[in-house]
Amino acid sequence: MAVYTEIPDNELVEYLKQYDIGELHSLKGIAEGVENSNYLLSTDNGMHILTLYEKRVKKDDLPFFLGLKDHLAENGVICPRPIAMRDGRVLGELAERPSAIISFLDGNSVKRPNPSHCEQVGQALAQMHLAGAGFELTRENALAPKDWEPLFEMSGRQTETVAMGLSAMIREELAFLNDNWPADLPSGVIHADLFPDNVFFLKGELSGLIDFYFACNDLLAYDVAICLNAWCFEADNSFNVTKAAKLLRGYNSVRPLSDREADALPVLCRGSALRFLLTRLYDWLNVPVGALVTPKDPSEYIEKLRFHRHVESASDYGIDLT
Amino acid sequence: MAVYTEIPDNELVEYLKQYDIGELHSLKGIAEGVENSNYLLSTDNGMHILTLYEKRVKKDDLPFFLGLKDHLAENGVICPRPIAMRDGRVLGELAERPSAIISFLDGNSVKRPNPSHCEQVGQALAQMHLAGAGFELTRENALAPKDWEPLFEMSGRQTETVAMGLSAMIREELAFLNDNWPADLPSGVIHADLFPDNVFFLKGELSGLIDFYFACNDLLAYDVAICLNAWCFEADNSFNVTKAAKLLRGYNSVRPLSDREADALPVLCRGSALRFLLTRLYDWLNVPVGALVTPKDPSEYIEKLRFHRHVESASDYGIDLT
Repeated sequence: MAVYTEIPDNELVEYLKQYDIGELHSLKGIAEGVENSNYLLSTDNGMHILTLYEKRVKKDDLPFFLGLKDHLAENGVICPRPIAMRDGRVLGELAERPSAIISFLDGNSVKRPNPSHCEQVGQALAQMHLAGAGFELTRENALAPKDWEPLFEMSGRQTETVAMGLSAMIREELAFLNDNWPADLPSGVIHADLFPDNVFFLKGELSGLIDFYFACNDLLAYDVAICLNAWCFEADNSFNVTKAAKLLRGYNSVRPLSDREADALPVLCRGSALRFLLTRLYDWLNVPVGALVTPKDPSEYIEKLRFHRHVESASDYGIDLT
Repeated sequence: MAVYTEIPDNELVEYLKQYDIGELHSLKGIAEGVENSNYLLSTDNGMHILTLYEKRVKKDDLPFFLGLKDHLAENGVICPRPIAMRDGRVLGELAERPSAIISFLDGNSVKRPNPSHCEQVGQALAQMHLAGAGFELTRENALAPKDWEPLFEMSGRQTETVAMGLSAMIREELAFLNDNWPADLPSGVIHADLFPDNVFFLKGELSGLIDFYFACNDLLAYDVAICLNAWCFEADNSFNVTKAAKLLRGYNSVRPLSDREADALPVLCRGSALRFLLTRLYDWLNVPVGALVTPKDPSEYIEKLRFHRHVESASDYGIDLT
């Protein structure tokens, strides 16, 4: 849930005059996105999303994020699209923050994905990877393998308060990943956060991808690994190989993984599990005073990481079942 | 901002089958109302509000709240209206909570009301008082004068941590109000919480009243006093007599206050200021662990109460200017 910036009445009315979307009907803060303030904005032209970029998002990254959505939408990916002002700009300023108005996407995220959802997500991810190919801007992954050790050091000794032995496990994992991370796989624009929260479905059919605020340039197969972690474990942290097989089948039907990419999946899954473990660990130990967001339990990703440490090859993810 | 209950995907789809509003397009938790979980629900039929009643609302009160909105809407008050299920009921159950779907009202609340807003609120409040006349259900005011002393005792000694001398001021006020509360003024259904948050405007015109979850039977002029406190002070807690005069003029243009009601306004304003001071004081001292709501500063109502203690007659509220 986001922190909501209060928008002064007159500022909003003036702001909207820069767009060709008619007059204001209503504005409601919505519980979507944790980095920004998001509002459902209704005008003469219908529904839109108004986003105010709060300080956790770097202003320099905004042209990448907004341009990417535009590029992907242009290339057939269903995603929210920034609406241009009368002068052609998409990035404005409102309530002393960078701001944008984005098209509204019908659909809802699912809390308990089924195998069909997983297959559709695999397809959509591969489509996004192909569609991203021609995008001229780039953005470095701010949570790449080289960033994991410094991130872990920020949690430091407090790590043991979450689970005994966790520090040793993380150090082992950092060393393993340092030695085994695949360097030369196909790379491109990845979503890097394609959790169920960020995928909409309408009557069972995927109706769009949202929240590109972690998107960056990195290994495409790493994005697949993030999705395996995000979509294919049950609530009790058990791995559902049927869902994984479907997700991989969906992906392969659009952009077949090479043998080298498939072989790298176990390592990439360990890396992805560690990346989310480390950010959740840090957030868990550093809840800001007055926070409106309940941090997510890091232990979910301890379990997932343990699972991947026992995986021997991509066939354990059901890739041969596809 | 509300606490959001997660609604299981399938339950929502099943739930909607009880209504004649088409299939689900999207559902977004919105930052409106603090007692309930509220969602913007889009279906084939357009936008609605879905409300889940959380434990702070008594289930026995729901027929009053829902019936009142229906009755008021029937009698010309613009307010959200409960949508009946196919079997005629308006109160359902979803995610193990009582629930209702309410019509969506266009418009936005204003953060800084101007005199025209105040006049329109006065009119709308009087219209609501007249329209409430024929409503057959009744609900006692759960925060009536008799409840103020026990409420104050719940804050007890901690009161002095908010402001030195506050306990003595409150005790004095309780004694004064006990001796001077007007018992025999016209009563009826009052909104009891008509703050700027709860009034929508569209292009400068009042477009509806929302949030009837404090509505009850009490003195009509007490509702006017609540609005004087809620609408006619500036951000620095100074009293704006122009706004008050407009609010009273708007009210009188629809339902003229009797001389006895007007004479009682200073006492009713003191009572209303004390009522909000006491609830804010309690909420301020008792923030639940993990609360998503930042409590409102009680000192705003200390200032307002001080102002009314110096008021000599309703003419200080600009009633003669109307």
